[in-house]
Amino acid sequence: MAESIVLLGWWSSPFATRVRIALAEKGIKYECEEEDLKNKSSLLLKMNPVHKKIPVLIHNGKPICESLIIVQYIDEVWKDKSPLLPSDPYQRAQARFWADFVDKKIFHCGRKIILTKGEEQEAAKKELIECLKMLEGELGDKPYFGGENLGFIDVALLPYYSWFYAYEICGNFSIEADCPKLVAWGKRCMEKESVSNSLQEEHKVYDFISQLKNRFVIE
Amino acid sequence: MAESIVLLGWWSSPFATRVRIALAEKGIKYECEEEDLKNKSSLLLKMNPVHKKIPVLIHNGKPICESLIIVQYIDEVWKDKSPLLPSDPYQRAQARFWADFVDKKIFHCGRKIILTKGEEQEAAKKELIECLKMLEGELGDKPYFGGENLGFIDVALLPYYSWFYAYEICGNFSIEADCPKLVAWGKRCMEKESVSNSLQEEHKVYDFISQLKNRFVIE
Repeated sequence: MAESIVLLGWWSSPFATRVRIALAEKGIKYECEEEDLKNKSSLLLKMNPVHKKIPVLIHNGKPICESLIIVQYIDEVWKDKSPLLPSDPYQRAQARFWADFVDKKIFHCGRKIILTKGEEQEAAKKELIECLKMLEGELGDKPYFGGENLGFIDVALLPYYSWFYAYEICGNFSIEADCPKLVAWGKRCMEKESVSNSLQEEHKVYDFISQLKNRFVIE
Repeated sequence: MAESIVLLGWWSSPFATRVRIALAEKGIKYECEEEDLKNKSSLLLKMNPVHKKIPVLIHNGKPICESLIIVQYIDEVWKDKSPLLPSDPYQRAQARFWADFVDKKIFHCGRKIILTKGEEQEAAKKELIECLKMLEGELGDKPYFGGENLGFIDVALLPYYSWFYAYEICGNFSIEADCPKLVAWGKRCMEKESVSNSLQEEHKVYDFISQLKNRFVIE
């Protein structure tokens, strides 16, 4: 029996994008079902009854939830091609640490840059740059966080690369001015089909965010 | 050369307690350095410059941070005794999912029960019970979340068991009334030395929390 692999996602979600990159890196074919987040499908509610959130990977009928957990699952199941986590336990712990750091920091800083103004926005811009500089430190002179190939941290962080343009326009600042190595990393990753086919186009992300902003920002 | 294993912790931290349980389950001897969280040591700031938080496990001079990442590291390095994560990728993903659920929900609900009053506290009590009932569902009829032995979810959740008493006194409610199976699980785990020697005494936790409460609650 052929394997059944279905991703419940949403086009602009950085969390769903991680799963798309991981599946593309492994060369796995899958069906993608786009969720309407204002009217979630009964399949999503059944497959992720706890959080009711995308992404969910449904592998032969069984659901896996939470993006970084899904990426680890993909790496463990399809372990022969393009390993994402290193084999050494200490290096694995470091990769998990930085992926967790991305989870704890980048989305929230970005959200504040988009949805706030004045001092709150300035603080968020400063914090985002500080975080990205720390990530630059971890990248060092390697082409990818994973070394010679994409790894777990790359997969965790890359979806935000296509949000950088929106952050910059909303916050009127340049990420490249402060973090040139990180932006060069993003460009390098975009040369890989597994990444460029998985990431959203940055202007499309900005248009989407402009709509969000109009709905939420209190002028 | 003998291995050097040092845990930078703090007695009442549920996050440090996870590491203590995992090390005890593996039968690993280690030094514990108690941090003064109001005056963090230069060692802590050096070993966890990003978050500046305990726990940090320092293994042969190299730091590992973030409690669930440390527990996975311990499980991967000392893999021959008392495995904490299952070997099957799907079961591993499920264990990671529920440990992450504990991280996202329990601490914050508990904090609100301790530090708020009225409607906000009632909502937090309701949410805590809902979360614990979901965990009861995952436990099912198994003696431990890990099956016949302690596993990753047990290690993630157990530290909160010694906070239940404080939650109950602060919130004037009974967790056992709503979640008898989960409380029975906690009692069962406490029969294991690896747990009872690692967890704080519940009255000591309550006394500590009473002091916190007096400092923060706006009457």
